[in-house]
Amino acid sequence: MIIITNDDGIVAPGIKALVEVARQFGEVMVVAPDSPQSGQGHAITLNHPLKLRKVNMFSGIDAYECSGTPVDCVKLAKSVLLKGKKIDLCVSGINHGANSALNIIYSGTMSAAMEASIEKIDSIGFSLLDYSFDADFEPAKYYVHKIIDSVLKNQLGLCKLLNVNIPACPLDDIKGIKVCRQGDGTWVEEFQEGIDPRGEKYYWLTGKFVSFEKTEELDNDINALKNKYVSIVPSGHDLTYHSEIQNLKFLEII
Amino acid sequence: MIIITNDDGIVAPGIKALVEVARQFGEVMVVAPDSPQSGQGHAITLNHPLKLRKVNMFSGIDAYECSGTPVDCVKLAKSVLLKGKKIDLCVSGINHGANSALNIIYSGTMSAAMEASIEKIDSIGFSLLDYSFDADFEPAKYYVHKIIDSVLKNQLGLCKLLNVNIPACPLDDIKGIKVCRQGDGTWVEEFQEGIDPRGEKYYWLTGKFVSFEKTEELDNDINALKNKYVSIVPSGHDLTYHSEIQNLKFLEII
Repeated sequence: MIIITNDDGIVAPGIKALVEVARQFGEVMVVAPDSPQSGQGHAITLNHPLKLRKVNMFSGIDAYECSGTPVDCVKLAKSVLLKGKKIDLCVSGINHGANSALNIIYSGTMSAAMEASIEKIDSIGFSLLDYSFDADFEPAKYYVHKIIDSVLKNQLGLCKLLNVNIPACPLDDIKGIKVCRQGDGTWVEEFQEGIDPRGEKYYWLTGKFVSFEKTEELDNDINALKNKYVSIVPSGHDLTYHSEIQNLKFLEII
Repeated sequence: MIIITNDDGIVAPGIKALVEVARQFGEVMVVAPDSPQSGQGHAITLNHPLKLRKVNMFSGIDAYECSGTPVDCVKLAKSVLLKGKKIDLCVSGINHGANSALNIIYSGTMSAAMEASIEKIDSIGFSLLDYSFDADFEPAKYYVHKIIDSVLKNQLGLCKLLNVNIPACPLDDIKGIKVCRQGDGTWVEEFQEGIDPRGEKYYWLTGKFVSFEKTEELDNDINALKNKYVSIVPSGHDLTYHSEIQNLKFLEII
């Protein structure tokens, strides 16, 4: 059984592309948000109840839209819809836009995949570097197929989560795949300020991603993507800064 | 300048306790959500604008309530309210309830602190292991004071983010501080099912945290807290599973 979800919402073309590929590998179930959830990170819904509605959107496939976040979708799929059933894989996406580098922590797409990986389910988040609704997912589908095939055959081992980003270009221009680390960079933010119809000031988030990578080495996803490689970052949920534990031991004797 | 935020909302007693301590170290500014945002993780608001409203809640202190998530609060503080000003520290909390172990990724409190740490600002998230609104924050304040004092004096170095959890017990029962790694465990979830007033089925998330730690060693926050130590986990935002990059290189030649 393969669970499919995303953060752009169940009507996004990206999840349709992912369903088309994933269904070739066996039984699938779609549980995805009923509205766009970009930037929802690892949000879960605690303060109010969730709704699930069966939808007939992908011919011959069990599909549900959920009123919650991408992580809620995975929790409901596992604990309610597929309770006790073996889940072989969770795939999330194909996201409309990059989730490379730091974006993994803001991304609902990657957080949904991470949620499944926490449950020791092999999980892959796929993103295409094209934010438009009518992006061309055909080149991406070629790599999504290859990667799902290999993960199902080989299984992931200790690391249960892959962050896959795919350059937005014709298939022939993609140079291959790089398994690499999360690139270093940040968002330089601005808020567009304005006045709403009631005369109140508002702030609307906008920004530009800036890479901190100093070399052109392909050991990180920022550079791999810039050079037209598909990037795969093996990822986890241990946020400990292990190498600094010793250096901060002085805090034990304050 | 110290930024103060939280995820329980600006009226929560926990942030009041944190303000009382932090103001002893110099100028502070409070920017906190106008509603409870527990479990919001690293969510940001992309699809609609945000509001900021100045509130006179903490005598003599600039304070703003924000319509967005905890991470939005930090972004607005940095990019709008304190644009170009040096920020010495960001403190988040004191959270009503634990943010140890895996909880760091669901926590709005910790995600707000993480957002500041991404901007290379020394940041600390504080949590008390008591979910109740009228929790006793006095013992916690003693340790919050000690830790802020030491971080301002020594600065944090490479790691810019501390996840601090404080046992819920009288001050004399707390044994000290452990600087340690994120403990291993997960939430075992259930959804309470019910029927809403319109006859539709709903699902409401509930669950129980289960530790996977096999020994009683105090090298992780789960065990440190169980043994009545304050836990400090140096944390980051690099999610790469570095040790598995080599093992997954086979994905480059599929």
